[in-house]
Amino acid sequence: MSDFEIETRLTSNAQGYWKGHVAPDWNIGNNPNGGYLSSIALRAIMELAPQHPDPLTVTTHYLRPGISDEECTVSTELLRSGRTMSTVRATLEQQGKPRVVVLAGLGDLTKVHNDSQSLVIPAPDMPPPDRCVQRSGEEQGVELPLLSRLDIRLHPDEALAGMAGRARVSGWIRFVDGHPPDSGSAIVFADTFPPSSFGLLGMVGWVPTIELTVHVRRRPVPGWVLGQFETRDLEAGRMVEDGLLWDQDGNLIAQSRQLALVVNRE
Amino acid sequence: MSDFEIETRLTSNAQGYWKGHVAPDWNIGNNPNGGYLSSIALRAIMELAPQHPDPLTVTTHYLRPGISDEECTVSTELLRSGRTMSTVRATLEQQGKPRVVVLAGLGDLTKVHNDSQSLVIPAPDMPPPDRCVQRSGEEQGVELPLLSRLDIRLHPDEALAGMAGRARVSGWIRFVDGHPPDSGSAIVFADTFPPSSFGLLGMVGWVPTIELTVHVRRRPVPGWVLGQFETRDLEAGRMVEDGLLWDQDGNLIAQSRQLALVVNRE
Repeated sequence: MSDFEIETRLTSNAQGYWKGHVAPDWNIGNNPNGGYLSSIALRAIMELAPQHPDPLTVTTHYLRPGISDEECTVSTELLRSGRTMSTVRATLEQQGKPRVVVLAGLGDLTKVHNDSQSLVIPAPDMPPPDRCVQRSGEEQGVELPLLSRLDIRLHPDEALAGMAGRARVSGWIRFVDGHPPDSGSAIVFADTFPPSSFGLLGMVGWVPTIELTVHVRRRPVPGWVLGQFETRDLEAGRMVEDGLLWDQDGNLIAQSRQLALVVNRE
Repeated sequence: MSDFEIETRLTSNAQGYWKGHVAPDWNIGNNPNGGYLSSIALRAIMELAPQHPDPLTVTTHYLRPGISDEECTVSTELLRSGRTMSTVRATLEQQGKPRVVVLAGLGDLTKVHNDSQSLVIPAPDMPPPDRCVQRSGEEQGVELPLLSRLDIRLHPDEALAGMAGRARVSGWIRFVDGHPPDSGSAIVFADTFPPSSFGLLGMVGWVPTIELTVHVRRRPVPGWVLGQFETRDLEAGRMVEDGLLWDQDGNLIAQSRQLALVVNRE
């Protein structure tokens, strides 16, 4: 089993709740990464619809920070299970308070619903991983235990805050333990690059995600995943960041969008 | 009261459920429009957090078609109410079955959270409404009772299916009864243009929305709203359509994204 599988593992209990443990290894500073918390809830969600093995659309609202190295419970509700899709919602709680709420549609990405025509978003040019810059928490002034689990290599022109001159960040990502990505990996990969706003604004203190929606479009081939994240819409301290993820063959595997706050460093 | 207000009106009953009526006037063919159904659920959601008068992020999953000219019930759950935001989920049922599930974050768009910097998506050039083409159901081969409620004028180069040569549609929209748009209007305006895929594929039979997320960014000024919708990602019969809405002053009022199926006409 991979680190990710172990650290998102749940056991069901008699009451139809799931129990898990939020590992400290996915932290950004003292807080568990949002995509990681979504992934824990998604584990429970996927259990409800084994005939639909791929998340197609996953929306998470982040109500409160998670608590790392602490137990969690996940409650789930199967809203509908049809031939092509299942829809499930889940709530992840810690210390008796909901932290993360997820609403997800599941399906089977290997099933072609209609092959009449395709439109494709091509992958951007990107230097190979060994010519990119390893993400570090140093500049951000924050510890990133997350980097013990994810190997993130940033485009050399976008690796330093304020350097890109635009609100964009791109680079490569993979699991440190060598586990190949799957369709669920997109949820955590879509939330673990530095905020794209740093490229424009420099190191603002904190960009907490209010809501993240990931549309998974295809199962990735084994290898690196290429991500590009951009904010084109920032106003009154609220921003909408769009993300795109491609597999190593250049196929789009997911689109993401998040609403986040821009909080000044005090 | 406007048609929209009347036709999304709910009464609460003792059990904490809401009761309403799905008007036939917002139909696409025989089915109530998705954005309209979301708006009914949103009415109940907004009641739970009067201190947060604007929807900031609204995700709807469409489980089953709604039934027009038929009663509905809406159940709601306040997940969290904080200083800057409230989070609520709702389920709209008809004939005992959930049709639409909504997860929404509410806030106050007049509150500036942080004014350090802005990024703005400019409105595209668009002929004035009187030089655009009124949306009609004729070509689509479907009745559009919806047009008794919404005045939709399409860009003359994109008004006919397959004409644009790309999966894009844009134009103007307003309420027929002259009621000015508000921050909630974006939810219904984001789902009432013809599917952008028609511009590329021509009249495919049906493009049912699986999930729609709308991020409301600003309260609109009175007048027309300009919408532009584009699909850049279509594969295996599943598409992701992005939408942008601006008010008459050219300010972005909302971004939308939906996952939809492309179903061939039989």
